[in-house]
Amino acid sequence: MSLTGMQLEVTRNAEGIDKAIATLTERFGDRCQTSMSLREQHGHTTSWLPNQPPDAVVFAHSTEEVSEIVKLCAELRVPIIPFGSGSSLEGHLNAPGGGISLDLSQMNEVVAVHPEDLDCVVQPGVTRKQLNAYLRDTGLFFPIDPGADATIGGMTATRASGTNAVLYGTMKDMVLALTVVMPDGTIVKTGSRAKKSSAGYDLTRLMVGSEGTLGVITEITLKLKGIPEAISGGIASFDSIADCCNTVIEAVQYGIPIARIELLDTLTVKSVNAYSKLDLPESPLLLVEFHGSDAGVREQAERFGEIAAENSLKKFEWATDPEERNKLWAARHDAYWAGLGLAPERTGLSTDVCVPISRLADCVTATHDDIEENGLIGPIVGHVGDGNFHVLVLTDLNDPEDIAKSEAFVERLNYRAIEMGGTCTGEHGVGQGKMKYLPKEHGAGVAVMAAVKRSLDPLNIMNPGKIVALDAE
Amino acid sequence: MSLTGMQLEVTRNAEGIDKAIATLTERFGDRCQTSMSLREQHGHTTSWLPNQPPDAVVFAHSTEEVSEIVKLCAELRVPIIPFGSGSSLEGHLNAPGGGISLDLSQMNEVVAVHPEDLDCVVQPGVTRKQLNAYLRDTGLFFPIDPGADATIGGMTATRASGTNAVLYGTMKDMVLALTVVMPDGTIVKTGSRAKKSSAGYDLTRLMVGSEGTLGVITEITLKLKGIPEAISGGIASFDSIADCCNTVIEAVQYGIPIARIELLDTLTVKSVNAYSKLDLPESPLLLVEFHGSDAGVREQAERFGEIAAENSLKKFEWATDPEERNKLWAARHDAYWAGLGLAPERTGLSTDVCVPISRLADCVTATHDDIEENGLIGPIVGHVGDGNFHVLVLTDLNDPEDIAKSEAFVERLNYRAIEMGGTCTGEHGVGQGKMKYLPKEHGAGVAVMAAVKRSLDPLNIMNPGKIVALDAE
Repeated sequence: MSLTGMQLEVTRNAEGIDKAIATLTERFGDRCQTSMSLREQHGHTTSWLPNQPPDAVVFAHSTEEVSEIVKLCAELRVPIIPFGSGSSLEGHLNAPGGGISLDLSQMNEVVAVHPEDLDCVVQPGVTRKQLNAYLRDTGLFFPIDPGADATIGGMTATRASGTNAVLYGTMKDMVLALTVVMPDGTIVKTGSRAKKSSAGYDLTRLMVGSEGTLGVITEITLKLKGIPEAISGGIASFDSIADCCNTVIEAVQYGIPIARIELLDTLTVKSVNAYSKLDLPESPLLLVEFHGSDAGVREQAERFGEIAAENSLKKFEWATDPEERNKLWAARHDAYWAGLGLAPERTGLSTDVCVPISRLADCVTATHDDIEENGLIGPIVGHVGDGNFHVLVLTDLNDPEDIAKSEAFVERLNYRAIEMGGTCTGEHGVGQGKMKYLPKEHGAGVAVMAAVKRSLDPLNIMNPGKIVALDAE
Repeated sequence: MSLTGMQLEVTRNAEGIDKAIATLTERFGDRCQTSMSLREQHGHTTSWLPNQPPDAVVFAHSTEEVSEIVKLCAELRVPIIPFGSGSSLEGHLNAPGGGISLDLSQMNEVVAVHPEDLDCVVQPGVTRKQLNAYLRDTGLFFPIDPGADATIGGMTATRASGTNAVLYGTMKDMVLALTVVMPDGTIVKTGSRAKKSSAGYDLTRLMVGSEGTLGVITEITLKLKGIPEAISGGIASFDSIADCCNTVIEAVQYGIPIARIELLDTLTVKSVNAYSKLDLPESPLLLVEFHGSDAGVREQAERFGEIAAENSLKKFEWATDPEERNKLWAARHDAYWAGLGLAPERTGLSTDVCVPISRLADCVTATHDDIEENGLIGPIVGHVGDGNFHVLVLTDLNDPEDIAKSEAFVERLNYRAIEMGGTCTGEHGVGQGKMKYLPKEHGAGVAVMAAVKRSLDPLNIMNPGKIVALDAE
C-alpha cells in the first residue's frame, strides 16, 4: 500500500520530543498523555490517509497555557499540532514528524455574547452545536454548518463553510477577530469587535484557514445572525444533473437569497433513502431552503418554483413542517455515512472542489461520467449555490490497484476544477491531501505562502508538513 | 508648522533613483514624467499631511510592464508608490524617501464580465463609476461606494467601503482574486473565480488593504450584485444623536437588511443645506435606503418607521422618486465639500473610526462633546450601520496652536474608539496618518505585520514608511 505520496517527510527530533514530554508531564500531570490509543485518536482518523500519531497529547486550559507550551516547543524545536474535535478530512491532524497534539477541546467556554452587536466571543473548543444551544434564548444563531459538530477553533483554522454558506458566507466572513498564540509564544489579538476596519494587514483572514501552521487560535470573536422569522424549503427533483445546476445558476443570477441549496445525485439519493429510511424520488434532486420574513420566503419560494419549472422540474415537494424539514436536513448531513453504506467494506475518500457556478453543470457532469467510465463508486453531493461539490470515492484500501484508480480520479477531478477557473478545495482545506494541487492552482503564490510561513514560523514547528512544506524545499 | 510627527523618515537613495529615472525614461519615453506639477499631484493632495512628491511618475500599461518596473526598482532599491486616482486621505501616496509613483490609471480596461457568475475582471485603473456605467446593460452593479470616484485598484489596496457596506460588505468581501506584482517582480494570482476556497493562506485578503506595501495590484476579480428590483428610502430626523444611533442599533438587531444608513449631525445638515441648496430639517438625521423586491422594501421601510417612532422620531420623509433620492445621496457624498464650506479659509482634516454598534451612541456623543468643549469645528457624518463615522476637523494650517489642538482631538478620538473595542480606521486606512495608533490597537500584532512585510518586501521598496515602518525599527 503506497498512500504516502501525499505525506511529506518531516525530520523527527526525537531528543527534543522526549525532553518536551518530560517537562509537559511534570507541568501538566494527567493533562499530558502518551497512551497509544489517545495518540492514534489524535492522529488523523476521519481521513483515508494513514494515521501518523503525535508523541503526546496535551490538554490546554487557557491562552497563557498554550503560550507556555508553544514557548517550550519552540525552545526544543518540537512540532505542535492544534486539535479540536478531529473532524477534518485531509490529514490536517497527522504528525509526520511526531510532536505534541495540543488538544483545545477543554477550552470550551462561551466567553461573552453581545446581542446588540450581533457578536460573541468563544474559546476554540466550543462546538457549533454547543454554541447554538447556548444562544437559543437570544434569538441569534451562528449559521456556519459544516455537517460535523466541529469546534469553532477547528472551523476557523480550516476556513470551514457548509450548507449555509450561500447566504451567510464562510468562516472568513463570520470571524471578526482572533486571539492567536504565535509560533514564538507571543499572544496576538488580530482585530477588534468593530464590524469593519482598514487598520493594517488583515491578520484575521491570514489566520483563518491557516490550519494551525501559523499559530494556535485560542479565542474567536464571531459575528452572529438573527434567527429568521420564517424558514421554508423543499425538494425539487429533476431528470438530469444539468437541469439541477441550471436551476441553481438561474436562481442565483435572479438574486433569490437562497439560504441553502444542496445537490444530491441519484446514487446519493439512493444511499440516503436506504440509510435514513426515506422515500425520496431516485433522480438528481435539489434540497432548498429560504430564510426571511413570512412574505419574503413565500416570494422567494414562488420565484424558485418558476425557475425550476423552466428547467424540466419533475416534482417539487414543500417541507413546511419544521420536523419534516429537520429530518430532510439530517438526512443530508448523514449523506457521508449513507454513502459509506453503499459499500461497507470500502473506505470513503472524501474530496471537494469548487468552480465558478457557470461551470458547475459541466464539472459535475464530467465528474459523473468519469466515475461511470472508470467503474468507481462515488456519490456526489454539493453546496451548489457556491459551485462547491463533494465526491465520496469508495475505495478498497487492501487493493493497491483500486487505490491507484481512486487517486487518479481525485487528481483528474482537482485538475478539472482548477482548469475551469476553480479551486482544489472549497472547504475541506489543504492538510496533507491537497498539497500537491497547490502549485497548479496558485503557481508563484505557493512561494509567497512559504515566505509568510517562514517569516512567522522560522523553526517550522507549527503543524509542519501541511499546506506548504518548508522541509521539502 | 510641525506636522511631520506622523511622517516617518525613509532613507533617500539618490543614486538609485537617478539611475532608475534614466532607465525608465529610455524605456517608457513620455510615459515617464518628472515635472514638479505632476510629481506634486502624485504626492498626497487630498490629505492635510504635507505633500512629499515622488521623483518621477511612470504610467504603466500592463502587468508585464509593472513587473519590469518593479524588477528595476528592486535592483536599484528605489521606492515604488502605486497610484490610482489619488483620492486616499491618510498620506498613502506620499513619497517620504522619494522614488517612483507608479500610475496605474491608464490600465483602465474592464477585462471580462461573467454575468452568470456575478463577477468581473478589471484592471486597477478602472474607476467605480466607469465600471458601473459599463455594467449598466447587464442588470448587475458593483456596490462599494466610498464617495470619491476612486479606482478599483486603489479601493482594493485600501480596503475601501462606504455607504453601501452595511448590506454589501467592504472590498474584503467583494474581491474574489487578484493579480499582484510582488516586490521582486514575480507575478502572482492570489485566487480563482470560485466563490469560496480553502486552498491555503488567504493571499487575496492579505493584499486587500495592504496599501501598496506588499505588492502592486494589476488585476482584480470582483463579485457583482444584481441591481435591486426596488429601492426605497428616506430621511428620518431626531432630536438627538443618541436617538439616531439607537434607531440604527435596533434596526440592525431586528435584522432589517438596510442597504445604506447614514448619520448627519446638525452641523453637517446645516453645511449640506448651504452647499447643496436643500432644506433638510436642521437636527441630527438618518438618511436610509432599502434594496429588494417591491414587497420587501415596503416591509423593511414599515418596520424601520416603527423602530424610529419608538426613538422619538421627529419627522420621516419618503424619497420614492429616484431623482429626489439621487439628489439626497449626491448631497451626502458632497458632505466633505459642504463641510469645508463651513470655514473656507481652513483645511479639512478628515478622520474616521469604527466601534461596535452598541458603543456608537456613546462614541459619537462623546466626540461631539469633545468638539464643543474644545471650540473645534468638526461636522460628523457616519456609516452608522457599521458603527463607522467620520469627523472633518477644520484646521487653520497657519496656526500651530490650532494644528496642535486638532491633532490632540484626533488622537483622543482614535484612542476613544480603540478603548471602546473599535478600530482607529474603519475605511480610510493607515497610510501615514494612522500609523501611530496601530500599536495601541494591535499590540504585538504590529510585529507580526512587520514580519510579513519584511518577508515579502525585504528591501522595503514597496510604498515605504506606511502601515509598518521597517526603517524606524
